[in-house]
Amino acid sequence: MHVDRERLRRDITETGAFGAIETDEGHGRTVLTGSEADRDAREYLVDALEAAGMDVRVDPVGNVAGRWVPDGADPDAGAVALGSHLDSVPRGGIFDGPLGVFGALEAVRAIRASDREPLRPLEVVSFTEEEGGRFGIGTLGSSVAAGDRSAEAALALEDDEGESLADRLSAIGFRGEDRLAPAAWDAWLELHVEQGTRLEAADASVGVVDAITGITNCRVVIEGTADHAGATPMDERTDALVAAGAFVQRVSEAASAIATEHPAAVATVGDHVVEPNVRNVIPGRVTMELDIRGVTGESIDELVDRIRAALGDVARAHSVEASLDRFRDDGPTEMTGRCVAAATDAADAVGLDARRFHSAAMHDTANVARVTDAGLLFAPSEGGVSHTPREWTDWDDCAAATRALAGAAARLAGTEPT
Amino acid sequence: MHVDRERLRRDITETGAFGAIETDEGHGRTVLTGSEADRDAREYLVDALEAAGMDVRVDPVGNVAGRWVPDGADPDAGAVALGSHLDSVPRGGIFDGPLGVFGALEAVRAIRASDREPLRPLEVVSFTEEEGGRFGIGTLGSSVAAGDRSAEAALALEDDEGESLADRLSAIGFRGEDRLAPAAWDAWLELHVEQGTRLEAADASVGVVDAITGITNCRVVIEGTADHAGATPMDERTDALVAAGAFVQRVSEAASAIATEHPAAVATVGDHVVEPNVRNVIPGRVTMELDIRGVTGESIDELVDRIRAALGDVARAHSVEASLDRFRDDGPTEMTGRCVAAATDAADAVGLDARRFHSAAMHDTANVARVTDAGLLFAPSEGGVSHTPREWTDWDDCAAATRALAGAAARLAGTEPT
Repeated sequence: MHVDRERLRRDITETGAFGAIETDEGHGRTVLTGSEADRDAREYLVDALEAAGMDVRVDPVGNVAGRWVPDGADPDAGAVALGSHLDSVPRGGIFDGPLGVFGALEAVRAIRASDREPLRPLEVVSFTEEEGGRFGIGTLGSSVAAGDRSAEAALALEDDEGESLADRLSAIGFRGEDRLAPAAWDAWLELHVEQGTRLEAADASVGVVDAITGITNCRVVIEGTADHAGATPMDERTDALVAAGAFVQRVSEAASAIATEHPAAVATVGDHVVEPNVRNVIPGRVTMELDIRGVTGESIDELVDRIRAALGDVARAHSVEASLDRFRDDGPTEMTGRCVAAATDAADAVGLDARRFHSAAMHDTANVARVTDAGLLFAPSEGGVSHTPREWTDWDDCAAATRALAGAAARLAGTEPT
Repeated sequence: MHVDRERLRRDITETGAFGAIETDEGHGRTVLTGSEADRDAREYLVDALEAAGMDVRVDPVGNVAGRWVPDGADPDAGAVALGSHLDSVPRGGIFDGPLGVFGALEAVRAIRASDREPLRPLEVVSFTEEEGGRFGIGTLGSSVAAGDRSAEAALALEDDEGESLADRLSAIGFRGEDRLAPAAWDAWLELHVEQGTRLEAADASVGVVDAITGITNCRVVIEGTADHAGATPMDERTDALVAAGAFVQRVSEAASAIATEHPAAVATVGDHVVEPNVRNVIPGRVTMELDIRGVTGESIDELVDRIRAALGDVARAHSVEASLDRFRDDGPTEMTGRCVAAATDAADAVGLDARRFHSAAMHDTANVARVTDAGLLFAPSEGGVSHTPREWTDWDDCAAATRALAGAAARLAGTEPT
């Protein structure tokens, strides 16, 4: 099978020009769902799918799928679907998303041009609003397709300007009536940029993910007493920030301890708001949001338990009121063994040393994996950076990872490996 | 000498009605410099000064003074001036400021009605913009009168709406052309609410301040590396917030240690800003502003030294970049011995057990003390609260503290004590 590096480069580069931004530091773009740039990117994809001989469908939340039923395939058999997303964060890069969509298209083109005859239909998919950049909820389109959320609920979401997803999709002509049902797919594969440095450090072109991290979020509030910074002696203070400082230390220590056994376990206090936040007033309240991740539910639960205990210790030691609200739990997602094996075998077959590791970021694949067999492949991110115009993946790496994707899809679709 | 409790109550209550706010928790008011409420309060004062037989002057920044030259006094002798301010913070109380202005007026009325014949002129003063509530700089009017700042510079200051102090004062008819020169005063006394609980705890009606705290401000910046909260393992992080948490602990510990020897010494991290402050991003930078106080320059310097050393320790331990900018030093101000003695003797003479302590808050008296002899008296604050509608001082305490003020003024003006 021949993956055409230049064709892939052209698709990604031309798509990257939609919503392109002025920048001194790389190829940046802003493609928010329902924007002109989003319409242009979607129309480019539809044209490319049709040019590759695929039938295009658009579902009610704007998810796009191109379908090819090979001559020897059973049209009623579950498809092997491949894809990712086309939207970006504000001032994002050109690979995060498009590599997976156009890599999928290139993989299908390569299979089609080969002497293989898949036994199952193949689909190329682009999910809506993966980044949550406009409507605030990440992996939105795939959550609807996977049945976790109704199309009505998603369409009613409003952006900062009060416009609904329904209106934004109608405005760009991508509020469809077709059906995308991952539950009916036989298998799913996504190729994405790593957004980390493990492939770069190993000088490898492709990674095969064995699990997508679970994310737990907690809101912690520490209440002391706001008071005059001059008139309140040190021994009469109940300073919420001093207590919060001790707590932040303890969160970091707890995660470092758990990480010695579970390297994927991390905990971060990223959002930290002090009130009243005035120089000459002792802080009365600190509100924090914690991001806790791990690839096993046990490691996450153990971390939350330790953090809860640490908060109790801090509250007692500093005489503050403290509360912890575990308000979000997206559990870890294991990839399906046969998808992992197909990707690993395919990489081997083209001479690539595929690395196995977990994904610390969330992906549409986590939604799809709840309803069908799923796999996730990574291409290297230079310097590990993403969500910035500095995001970059070498074109040779793009092509190599796409070769692994094509081989994996061919295996799952029932052709013999070459 | 007879201080008229009801007359004092009426002056404070009627002035408290200007800018009065709706509240369920007490008598609140918002009197920002140059507002209608400020004009009403100033006009009420001018009328009351004139009714008490005083000549009224207004200087270019709106400071108001009423002057009485007793029959037996040398009109060219340095005056004994008493006063405070009429402006408030937004949603402040009715005693912070007006007690000192109308207490001064009541003291002069009491002296005038007595059989004493002072040898020096007496003045009742109200300084502009003590709170800094509209133009951002506290004790503004007294800083101009004391020569620390030019009238031009003060008049050019703009509020949040872009209106200058000059315009605001012109609009209310209080941009005067007279001269107020504290340097020419023989002595100055201010009566103010304590804004603390020391008098209440001692069940005392009057406090005599021996020193006004010095305030040093530092800006501390800790720089780590903002990074993906999921993809960055615990042992590869440079988390600015974890380092800042350790630093905040150390600031509190350093101040508590110094406070065992210098009880007035305090240090507060009140302003604490995390960047980017997003839940799933490791904090890259924390910017803090510190408020450090003490009644000796040595205690403040020692505290800053310890904080600087702690910051160095934290930077090394957490591999972060850290900087400390000591951007403001308003040194401590000692009150003048003869003013302290006059106030203490006067309190004794009327059977009040005057407490001696420092002021942890800044006052106009700190500016005046740089150019002439000065003293500061406190009346109790119920519960220690101020800058809120819940601010309250019992009317009996107002009258008692005013009796001490009147006695002190009479002593400084050269009459014999009764």
